[in-house]
Amino acid sequence: MEFKPVGIARSRLSTAGAPPFQSVFSHEVGEIEVFPAFREGLKNIEGFSHLIILSYFDQAERRALTEQPLLDAEMDHGIFACRHFNRPNPIGISYMTLAKVTGCRLSVRGMDLLDGTPILDIKPYIPAFDSIPDALSGWVSETHIGRIRETSLQAHQDLDKKLRQG
Amino acid sequence: MEFKPVGIARSRLSTAGAPPFQSVFSHEVGEIEVFPAFREGLKNIEGFSHLIILSYFDQAERRALTEQPLLDAEMDHGIFACRHFNRPNPIGISYMTLAKVTGCRLSVRGMDLLDGTPILDIKPYIPAFDSIPDALSGWVSETHIGRIRETSLQAHQDLDKKLRQG
Repeated sequence: MEFKPVGIARSRLSTAGAPPFQSVFSHEVGEIEVFPAFREGLKNIEGFSHLIILSYFDQAERRALTEQPLLDAEMDHGIFACRHFNRPNPIGISYMTLAKVTGCRLSVRGMDLLDGTPILDIKPYIPAFDSIPDALSGWVSETHIGRIRETSLQAHQDLDKKLRQG
Repeated sequence: MEFKPVGIARSRLSTAGAPPFQSVFSHEVGEIEVFPAFREGLKNIEGFSHLIILSYFDQAERRALTEQPLLDAEMDHGIFACRHFNRPNPIGISYMTLAKVTGCRLSVRGMDLLDGTPILDIKPYIPAFDSIPDALSGWVSETHIGRIRETSLQAHQDLDKKLRQG
């Protein structure tokens, strides 16, 4: 099974393993730059507000079977019971808000990928297929989710400040 | 970028390009058989009610840039604006209800994969990360969604009947 990237992420993010974690909590904007050979694949994408972005975690350190969550290192969980990037097949899933399509460039909000991350696939998010609001979240507590939200906002504000100061 | 399967789908489904379409509308039960080498990756998976299953569409006919939806062939759409399996990187996304874990076997509902489909990754579905009920569905109309729902139920009933009759 060999895959080739169909595009690349352009973002302000450059530190692996640092927040934002989870696209839904990311305040970062960015671009998905689709390679020109795949441009035709974007036909009719404009009508969707959210995209499912499958990416390749090319900075993942290892292919682990268990991991400790980045913000809650007290317990380890099976890699199929958590969202850590050190996975047997390091494929990431992000949901980004589509703001604008300019040729091969998708301007997005909710960017959570490092600059240069290879993109494997783009699918339209369709709530009738993809939204399961009442699913049970296992070991993932409200407190854990709150910490992801807070650190992701803080990371965005810190990056703003750092870039303003040059 | 080379990936190896971490498991395989076990289902009653054997006809490529036939319903059920979309796991959420599938009435099929089945199993995700995780290979023994990855068993440790299942630790703590029991608490999640729904799993994100990334699979490899090994029966996809070609890697297309545009496709006509299987149930609405009047228009073609960019492959990144539809969910057709003939994709540049044929990775599928299914959401299955986890009914039971028995060693390396995950009993699931909402099976929409052909028997023998290679599994690339399993992630826990976490509504706070993954559920976006108000996303806009572009060209995907309520009528189209209704037809997917109906044909998927019909396919399940037909298969029941066929298997009962031997």
